Amino acid sequence: MSQVTGVSIKVHPDDNVAIVVDAGGLSAGSLLADGVELLDAVPQGHKVALEDIVREQPVLRYGEVIGYALEDIARGRWVNEGMLRMPEAPSLDTLPLATRRPPMFEPLDDYTFEGFRNNDGSVGTRNVLGIATSVQCVAGVTDHVVQRIKRELLPRFPNVDDVVGLTHSYGCGVAINAPAAIVPIRTLQNLARNPNLGGEVMVVGLGCEKLQPQRLVEPPVLPGTTAGQAAPASILSLQDERFAGFAAMVDGIMAMAEAHLEKLNRRTRETCPASELVVGMQCGGSDAFSGLTANPAVGFAADLIVRAGGSVMFSEVTEVRDAIHLLTPRVADEETGRALLREMAWYDDYLRHGSADRSANTTPGNKKGGLANIVEKAMGSIIKSGNSPIVDVIGPGERIRRRGLTFAATPASDFICGTLQLAAGMNMHVFTTGRGTPYGLAMVPVIKVATNSRLARQWFDLIDVDAGRIATGDASIEDIGWEIFRLILDVASGRQDVAADRLGLHNDLVLFNPAPVT
Amino acid sequence: MSQVTGVSIKVHPDDNVAIVVDAGGLSAGSLLADGVELLDAVPQGHKVALEDIVREQPVLRYGEVIGYALEDIARGRWVNEGMLRMPEAPSLDTLPLATRRPPMFEPLDDYTFEGFRNNDGSVGTRNVLGIATSVQCVAGVTDHVVQRIKRELLPRFPNVDDVVGLTHSYGCGVAINAPAAIVPIRTLQNLARNPNLGGEVMVVGLGCEKLQPQRLVEPPVLPGTTAGQAAPASILSLQDERFAGFAAMVDGIMAMAEAHLEKLNRRTRETCPASELVVGMQCGGSDAFSGLTANPAVGFAADLIVRAGGSVMFSEVTEVRDAIHLLTPRVADEETGRALLREMAWYDDYLRHGSADRSANTTPGNKKGGLANIVEKAMGSIIKSGNSPIVDVIGPGERIRRRGLTFAATPASDFICGTLQLAAGMNMHVFTTGRGTPYGLAMVPVIKVATNSRLARQWFDLIDVDAGRIATGDASIEDIGWEIFRLILDVASGRQDVAADRLGLHNDLVLFNPAPVT
Repeated sequence: MSQVTGVSIKVHPDDNVAIVVDAGGLSAGSLLADGVELLDAVPQGHKVALEDIVREQPVLRYGEVIGYALEDIARGRWVNEGMLRMPEAPSLDTLPLATRRPPMFEPLDDYTFEGFRNNDGSVGTRNVLGIATSVQCVAGVTDHVVQRIKRELLPRFPNVDDVVGLTHSYGCGVAINAPAAIVPIRTLQNLARNPNLGGEVMVVGLGCEKLQPQRLVEPPVLPGTTAGQAAPASILSLQDERFAGFAAMVDGIMAMAEAHLEKLNRRTRETCPASELVVGMQCGGSDAFSGLTANPAVGFAADLIVRAGGSVMFSEVTEVRDAIHLLTPRVADEETGRALLREMAWYDDYLRHGSADRSANTTPGNKKGGLANIVEKAMGSIIKSGNSPIVDVIGPGERIRRRGLTFAATPASDFICGTLQLAAGMNMHVFTTGRGTPYGLAMVPVIKVATNSRLARQWFDLIDVDAGRIATGDASIEDIGWEIFRLILDVASGRQDVAADRLGLHNDLVLFNPAPVT
Repeated sequence: MSQVTGVSIKVHPDDNVAIVVDAGGLSAGSLLADGVELLDAVPQGHKVALEDIVREQPVLRYGEVIGYALEDIARGRWVNEGMLRMPEAPSLDTLPLATRRPPMFEPLDDYTFEGFRNNDGSVGTRNVLGIATSVQCVAGVTDHVVQRIKRELLPRFPNVDDVVGLTHSYGCGVAINAPAAIVPIRTLQNLARNPNLGGEVMVVGLGCEKLQPQRLVEPPVLPGTTAGQAAPASILSLQDERFAGFAAMVDGIMAMAEAHLEKLNRRTRETCPASELVVGMQCGGSDAFSGLTANPAVGFAADLIVRAGGSVMFSEVTEVRDAIHLLTPRVADEETGRALLREMAWYDDYLRHGSADRSANTTPGNKKGGLANIVEKAMGSIIKSGNSPIVDVIGPGERIRRRGLTFAATPASDFICGTLQLAAGMNMHVFTTGRGTPYGLAMVPVIKVATNSRLARQWFDLIDVDAGRIATGDASIEDIGWEIFRLILDVASGRQDVAADRLGLHNDLVLFNPAPVT
């Protein structure tokens, strides 16, 4: 009997391909456990044919068709992206809605974290002074003042964790009355209401801009709620006649910031049930392990949060589109299902207007990492959502409305998705990566989960959790899922830092503006 | 004979409105020099009817129709935006091309500045290390390293003025093969070639991104030139296996930066003719004085630069569209005229796709400042171009090709326009403002010109030139035009700082991406 020389993972009994696990890939002649002998060298994370696949036959992974063979593919061959024709995206007209019986989950009652309770009922995991801005023109001044506040004021307010300038490229030079302008506008309004800003938001505006600063703090009325209870906000416009020159502007902002810092500094953490968590799930720089290790573990953690009564968001329309037929049965009711389909159709249309489609999603790194196309990527991406019913769908920039699992429709672009999840009200963020990205957000802690141990080792100080141990058999999906869940509670409580915060790595907010600039 | 109690400016003999100059506006009953008695109080910068205007009659300013009266307007009344119906934009089908005989300008031979000569023939006005980036994922790391380079390396290289990270929100999560993706891609390529970066560009990439770092430094082949002579660039990817963790990445970037700083530090300024200037003209936060004071003076300075053999760009399609019939006669040849019309048509179409039109341009501040609509704004905006023939038209993100006056087609959004003019190769920037904006760019000095003395006084440390003296009769358009021209030479030579650089106020680059995100 021959010696097994390679490790591979087959996800679903119907699959006719498996993924090579070995760190350096496998050479031709290697033997897999099920007797398949490799005819080609196969890089790590890439697919090997487990049986002869005839031209035009489907190639199956996760039990789903990820492509059709463009040529006969012999058992043992490397199945690369050039050998597959991508299937059409599922039609949105004939999908079953709310047909799946929800899994019988035991509630989880005894988990808590130490958070900052806000007047509007939300709970912060950090105590941050947010300086919202109405227009890009004030970004330079705001950046300058944020640095001064950090140096000169923050040390006097030990209960305040940070000061963050919410600078962006919107607010003027844009078609502010175009139909799609609602997306960036509500995003900015809801960013200012993120739980980690504690309702003590101040706004720096210019004066002549299209997005007048008052609009940022209008109390929004949400469906099913009464008028918002936003704390009175402070607004300052640089063109105001009382500011004679730059130093006066800076002094004005500093004085306003000091007043808000006084109030934030009086806040303390208190024990809150895990049901107050609002966790945004995202992946970026994915590889073929994303769907095998990190994303299933994150999905397990997502289910734990839902069982604890908390809120979870998953997003990234172009990474959901090809798996939509797996999601529509999971919606809690038909109305939610129709909302989900509307978001898919909106994005199909948006891409078509730009002469693109969802296949524009995959990157060179995805392909190098073994993902043949967006279908394979989507199958691995939606696993982040776990198995809970989808109780709500929100549009880009909208605020989350229900506990449980929500689909927050956003582009997959890492920083746009993160910005929109911040606007939705997330107070914790989990980000999985296979290729590696030094992703970080200033407002909310980001737990970064590596899909493979090579990355976790190489980026030892940039990665928080190594889910690659699942592929090597050193941990189960459940183990890593629980590890992520417990880490969420520790980080949310301020007991533990994440890598991005230790290093101070934070990317700028990026708005989604589907409307024209002028 | 009654006492004249108010000052107004009528621009063109055919005009039936004039602009109130007096700082606090004029009260009803005030008498103007031409005998008109005000029937309403009229704010500064706003229009007063110089004769009875019957409903549906045209209202003329700059000798052009800026609107049609929606009601009978008596002589002496305040003509505000609510009383005007906006004319249709001029049709692009029937405009005369290249019909105007160019003005007979005397060449200006003896003006020079002290600049940094580059291998590609361009001349820098600053000696800056540019760290280009291929994707937003690396922005956090790049920002961190730029701060360290400024602290730890820059003091050892006294001939280097600054280090600038060219961070942005493009590079991944975008439809990179969509037709319109060419705009952000060529913008990033050409930003790295800005004359102030001296050809010593280095690129920080991630590894898995769609916009692979190599693409940023591909030598572009321009129409009418041979292949580019870009200096060999250094590229570093954070995912590279040689970087074990964050500190190693930072060390890698620092080492690469040091090598480039060594080379930049050997450069010295040398005397260059003014023909090496590439000046970008822009306005932002305009008021009714923009077209009376600052923009005419900037236009005069533009003609001086052209007479000296230099290059001038004007931009802002939505502020040119309604004055296009005044520009098409000025193009140097019919081909340039057709290129100009193509850019207008492209933008009409772009706005229409977003259910907007050029009327989306005007801001609340414009209107408060007396500009009734985009037609009136456009008439005042194009004056920045002076009287020279338009020798070339370039698309957004393209590099300038000819000396003389070029129309660089860009959105009017201040920071997008500035970013695209940087990509076009500008080495000096002139920015006029009436309402006031603390605009600044890190790569190229920005001379800020106030349209009114009230702003110049209030923002004494943020404004470089007070063109309001034209309205009060204390200086002529020619005087301020020469002042701006001489200041350009002084700033370009490093002999004088601009306000934004003294204060360290620099806004981020903002790309124009008309293609979808994914």
